[in-house]
Amino acid sequence: MNNQKDPDMMQKIKVRRKPFVVGVMGGHEAPQEILEDARRIGEAIAKRGHVLLTGGGDGVMKAASEGAFKAGGLVLAVLPSDRVRPLAGYPNAFVDIAIYTGMADARNVINAKTPHVMIAIDGGWGTVSEIAHALRNDTPVIALKTPSIGLPHGKRLIASASVEDTLAQLDRLLSKPL
Amino acid sequence: MNNQKDPDMMQKIKVRRKPFVVGVMGGHEAPQEILEDARRIGEAIAKRGHVLLTGGGDGVMKAASEGAFKAGGLVLAVLPSDRVRPLAGYPNAFVDIAIYTGMADARNVINAKTPHVMIAIDGGWGTVSEIAHALRNDTPVIALKTPSIGLPHGKRLIASASVEDTLAQLDRLLSKPL
Amino acid sequence: MNNQKDPDMMQKIKVRRKPFVVGVMGGHEAPQEILEDARRIGEAIAKRGHVLLTGGGDGVMKAASEGAFKAGGLVLAVLPSDRVRPLAGYPNAFVDIAIYTGMADARNVINAKTPHVMIAIDGGWGTVSEIAHALRNDTPVIALKTPSIGLPHGKRLIASASVEDTLAQLDRLLSKPL
Amino acid sequence: MNNQKDPDMMQKIKVRRKPFVVGVMGGHEAPQEILEDARRIGEAIAKRGHVLLTGGGDGVMKAASEGAFKAGGLVLAVLPSDRVRPLAGYPNAFVDIAIYTGMADARNVINAKTPHVMIAIDGGWGTVSEIAHALRNDTPVIALKTPSIGLPHGKRLIASASVEDTLAQLDRLLSKPL
Repeated sequence: MNNQKDPDMMQKIKVRRKPFVVGVMGGHEAPQEILEDARRIGEAIAKRGHVLLTGGGDGVMKAASEGAFKAGGLVLAVLPSDRVRPLAGYPNAFVDIAIYTGMADARNVINAKTPHVMIAIDGGWGTVSEIAHALRNDTPVIALKTPSIGLPHGKRLIASASVEDTLAQLDRLLSKPL
Repeated sequence: MNNQKDPDMMQKIKVRRKPFVVGVMGGHEAPQEILEDARRIGEAIAKRGHVLLTGGGDGVMKAASEGAFKAGGLVLAVLPSDRVRPLAGYPNAFVDIAIYTGMADARNVINAKTPHVMIAIDGGWGTVSEIAHALRNDTPVIALKTPSIGLPHGKRLIASASVEDTLAQLDRLLSKPL
Repeated sequence: MNNQKDPDMMQKIKVRRKPFVVGVMGGHEAPQEILEDARRIGEAIAKRGHVLLTGGGDGVMKAASEGAFKAGGLVLAVLPSDRVRPLAGYPNAFVDIAIYTGMADARNVINAKTPHVMIAIDGGWGTVSEIAHALRNDTPVIALKTPSIGLPHGKRLIASASVEDTLAQLDRLLSKPL
Repeated sequence: MNNQKDPDMMQKIKVRRKPFVVGVMGGHEAPQEILEDARRIGEAIAKRGHVLLTGGGDGVMKAASEGAFKAGGLVLAVLPSDRVRPLAGYPNAFVDIAIYTGMADARNVINAKTPHVMIAIDGGWGTVSEIAHALRNDTPVIALKTPSIGLPHGKRLIASASVEDTLAQLDRLLSKPL
């Protein structure tokens, strides 16, 4: 168990009671520039005292988790796999608490319903499914460099072109009742 | 139970052994023209001896089911609801066999994984999630009057503009190994 | 695809419209005597014109499916796996229509919610989970040679010691409004 | 949002990195004596630095959450409901982080797969399903005053008659590699 093997990870972190949960969704592979965006966003989420939620895998998920983890934030992951049938790369090394579902793609629905705000970064069909589930469930989505989807976006799907803009939108969304 | 109340529905139907399952996905509301497309496609699916799979609700789901049911086809539906917590309109009157999940949006994943071919007609975010899950799972999708999604479509997502074209694509896909 | 490869399986079957769905649940391994019970029950379900639902795997699931299939019945299976990540033995050779979930154990919930009556035969923890989910959802359960569970059984959990008794209870349950 | 309304809940808590997750499962109704057991167990889990996971509802779930929350522990809950279709009593007032699934009973599977150890207290069919799913997935279960289940228990299902015994078993299980 990681619990036993990483005594140096036992440093304490501080979590705000009833924190906001911010989801960061994206592919398990991405260009370096995208990974750096994800890492910076994860770091900024932790510094704001929010909990980070990802799908727990590689690529964008891992980069965001690393950013939050190293900044002392709490990192949750909803995994497609379980302990009996593990999946390579899940959870990544920067996950504090892993939620095991064994439900494969159906865990995308949980990723979409749980966060107070979802940030989608780049991504493929899995990320598109998470955006769609989020919007069906009134979870606001900030889409950073994500493929456009030809549906009326409405006020809950916000396109973003930079980390700075993404964080400004996040702060705006969380500054008022969702 | 419908079983008891509809003796005149007890007429026999014929189902081919190991039939193809064709999914028809779309919104619970749609313009009349779209509903007529859905009805015609359901009818054509039944006449080819395929089993129809829908989400079991109103709108496109009901229109396709009606077309298939009245043509003597077998109509399956994977419902978001269950018997203990029923949802108005589920299953619609043209469902032969209802699969109860109680899983809300997570049933979209089953709708996407089960059919040999999925036909998406019009639709909103729920339909987009089903298209995305299908393409993640290598289920071919014929998209009739569905919003474009700005990702590389690849060979498994086929845009269609008419019922005739949709059926030609369906026959082509099912004529060779999937 | 099986569809193409088994032309001799293309014989027609007859399914009653809005049929009853009877679930048969049990382990993927079982003694020969239990498998023979399962086969006979599957056969009897088909001869009554009901649709058989199983988990689609080996052991009790396969034996019941074989009984129903060879008697000309329609056999459905809700699989824990999907086409992209297939699981050895799923679906077994006697499944007409496979519902792919990819949800591992969560598909047990669907097995429990969908049938009008569930027959549990022998079985391990997976079967116990299906019995528990069924009773939570008011699905009547006939338990044939299944481990007792130390909860008040109530009228919906019926212990049975023989195939004959199981079928008598099934007919009784389906003869009146569920 | 609770986040905004409870500024006095914003006190900081300390969570050990890569903590153990201990699940406490039980019914949404229970006698007072059982609730007191649950509260004491939740409190003890928090004092050991473990994260508490429950189903997020009333009864045993709420009592355990209250015990852990008031002792400064981190309380997670995997809910059957979601924000769009809320369910009365979910999440209870002592949940720090709610995982929304909208999957009804299928969330029991997640409750069973996620914790390093599950403690079942009293409970009905829902709890039985969680015990069964846990044992299918090699999650150790300590069953306090829970109905016996007539299957070979094996080493992973441990009957307990008191809070003290339950905690002794918990400490023993977490003192060695799981």
